[in-house]
Amino acid sequence: MNEKIRYLREKMKKLDLEGMIISNPINIKYLTNIEEEGTLLITRKENIFITYSMYLESVKNTLTINDEIIVADTREISKEDYENFFLFCENVGFEENYVTYENYKIIKQKYKTNNLVETEGLLEKMREVKNQDEINNIKKACEITDRCFEHLQKFIKIGITEIEIANEIEDFFKKNGAENISFKPIVAVGENTSNPHWKPTKRAVKMADPILIDMGCKYNGYCSDMTRTIFMGCILEEIKPIYDLVLKNQLLTTREMREYANIKMLSSISETDFKVNGYDLIHAVGHGIGLEVHERPIISFKNDTFLKENMVLANEPGIYLPGKYGIRIEDTVLVGKNEGISLTNFPRTYVVI
Amino acid sequence: MNEKIRYLREKMKKLDLEGMIISNPINIKYLTNIEEEGTLLITRKENIFITYSMYLESVKNTLTINDEIIVADTREISKEDYENFFLFCENVGFEENYVTYENYKIIKQKYKTNNLVETEGLLEKMREVKNQDEINNIKKACEITDRCFEHLQKFIKIGITEIEIANEIEDFFKKNGAENISFKPIVAVGENTSNPHWKPTKRAVKMADPILIDMGCKYNGYCSDMTRTIFMGCILEEIKPIYDLVLKNQLLTTREMREYANIKMLSSISETDFKVNGYDLIHAVGHGIGLEVHERPIISFKNDTFLKENMVLANEPGIYLPGKYGIRIEDTVLVGKNEGISLTNFPRTYVVI
Repeated sequence: MNEKIRYLREKMKKLDLEGMIISNPINIKYLTNIEEEGTLLITRKENIFITYSMYLESVKNTLTINDEIIVADTREISKEDYENFFLFCENVGFEENYVTYENYKIIKQKYKTNNLVETEGLLEKMREVKNQDEINNIKKACEITDRCFEHLQKFIKIGITEIEIANEIEDFFKKNGAENISFKPIVAVGENTSNPHWKPTKRAVKMADPILIDMGCKYNGYCSDMTRTIFMGCILEEIKPIYDLVLKNQLLTTREMREYANIKMLSSISETDFKVNGYDLIHAVGHGIGLEVHERPIISFKNDTFLKENMVLANEPGIYLPGKYGIRIEDTVLVGKNEGISLTNFPRTYVVI
Repeated sequence: MNEKIRYLREKMKKLDLEGMIISNPINIKYLTNIEEEGTLLITRKENIFITYSMYLESVKNTLTINDEIIVADTREISKEDYENFFLFCENVGFEENYVTYENYKIIKQKYKTNNLVETEGLLEKMREVKNQDEINNIKKACEITDRCFEHLQKFIKIGITEIEIANEIEDFFKKNGAENISFKPIVAVGENTSNPHWKPTKRAVKMADPILIDMGCKYNGYCSDMTRTIFMGCILEEIKPIYDLVLKNQLLTTREMREYANIKMLSSISETDFKVNGYDLIHAVGHGIGLEVHERPIISFKNDTFLKENMVLANEPGIYLPGKYGIRIEDTVLVGKNEGISLTNFPRTYVVI
């Protein structure tokens, strides 16, 4: 059987779950590689993917015999079939953080399970630790992202707008082997860098502007995420100590992203040092990266858990001075046994173009 | 007060709702134009948008005094504030088709409402009928889409791949005033046209290939949706009668998309005629279009309701012969008093390039 589903079944056993109804397409893609719409049922004896007739062919092309997944056509499943899938099962899990309240009621009614139980992010927790294939995909996405930044370094000139840069990023990714962007690029120029979630506008690059670019792409479904703040022509002297402060903490945090590191402590590295210097860390210092660009675990002071080897995390401290400028430096980091390994590697030192 | 919120309040009164918790970002955008993350509360006396500090500025820039919406910072709202928002309210609505089961439980706990009730798509139903501003935005998106097809007619040559055409579409939209695509373009060439939900591949255009392109863009958040099936060099004679059959029914359906038309009947136009000729209609003949490219109402034989003036609908009958070819013709149609008005207008007759 498919290795991930076998592992899921072990986890289910420990949680006393005799079945599971999986609706979240990202969890389905994770377990099966299927990208078509449908529902994956883990019943006591079988794995069944129920989908629409128009997707049958491509779903069957995605699966291998080794997956041991039965593909079924919605049109051929009767009311009784639904009721029988989990017959005599005590606890059947569902994804309470994906299924809407309305669909919860429909599921409850359709499958007639004794006890429909919340799985508390069981699959999202599994997804936190990546296997070698997943890491390889993320590495590829990171390589393309590095190359994109190298390209931008030559592409960006005085007079070019935030929107034009954002379009160039999307274009570059598509033409260089990425299947997609992992999120709409954030491109902020000058005073706009002070807003951490800026949407690109027609603001054009001028001499001495900081340029903050936060971007990522997807490779085989897996995401990268990287930010650099670079400068047009020169760096205002007053920005340098802030840049240095962000960079120092970013590098230290990457190094500390190792097995058994406490997440709360990890978050407090930048937080404390920023505070000592009179600044606030106004967003989480990071998040998991995988099939989603933001996934578990969140790297914030609220999370008192520990890192595991082969988690992949964004590490993105930033300082923002409203109306003036902001500096953020971000890498996609692989959690190693002894230290974190940055998978994005465009220079982190001052880049003046 | 903002016209849409006033109308919502009238609807709420009729449904005996004394408050509403709006979480779906599309419904929030519809009511307020706000695109930032947050929750909109319709309390007995006030409209309150609760958001994160980093979004406060841009939210305030979006709203006008006329909106009468109070903007609040999540950090400044206490546990008691949440409990007081709907104090003494009998029924408070929530979006059961958007809110996850987990968030439903959080909402229930946080707001301590007597009776948290399902609103049964109240806002999605409101969104079905468009006002003049919304129609103008959709018209703009349709114009850009028409122009994109004109461009493709010149751009597509023998040897070009599905992926290259799809990239060109995205590029054209961005460079011609659209803020985004409304969905990933479907570009299918040759035998791939027989799959209605094809994802672009490296399949290159050859002589005599049919080329099916289903695409749309967004203008001010509003979507367009159009499909044409065109031909490289010549049209196989055997395709012509199928094309004619699809086109005849598509045109008839557009004409019938008028006020008070029964949706079930509308769907049966193509369905019946296809069947008589030995083909099946394997997907719904259409759907609502607005802030989402697929929204209410669904135009299918299961929907026994009636059209209203100023709904905007996709009309997209298609015939697919597995492994051979498929023909789909689709327009974005405005429901008029006496007949439907097509807002996309690239030629529907045989286009041979």
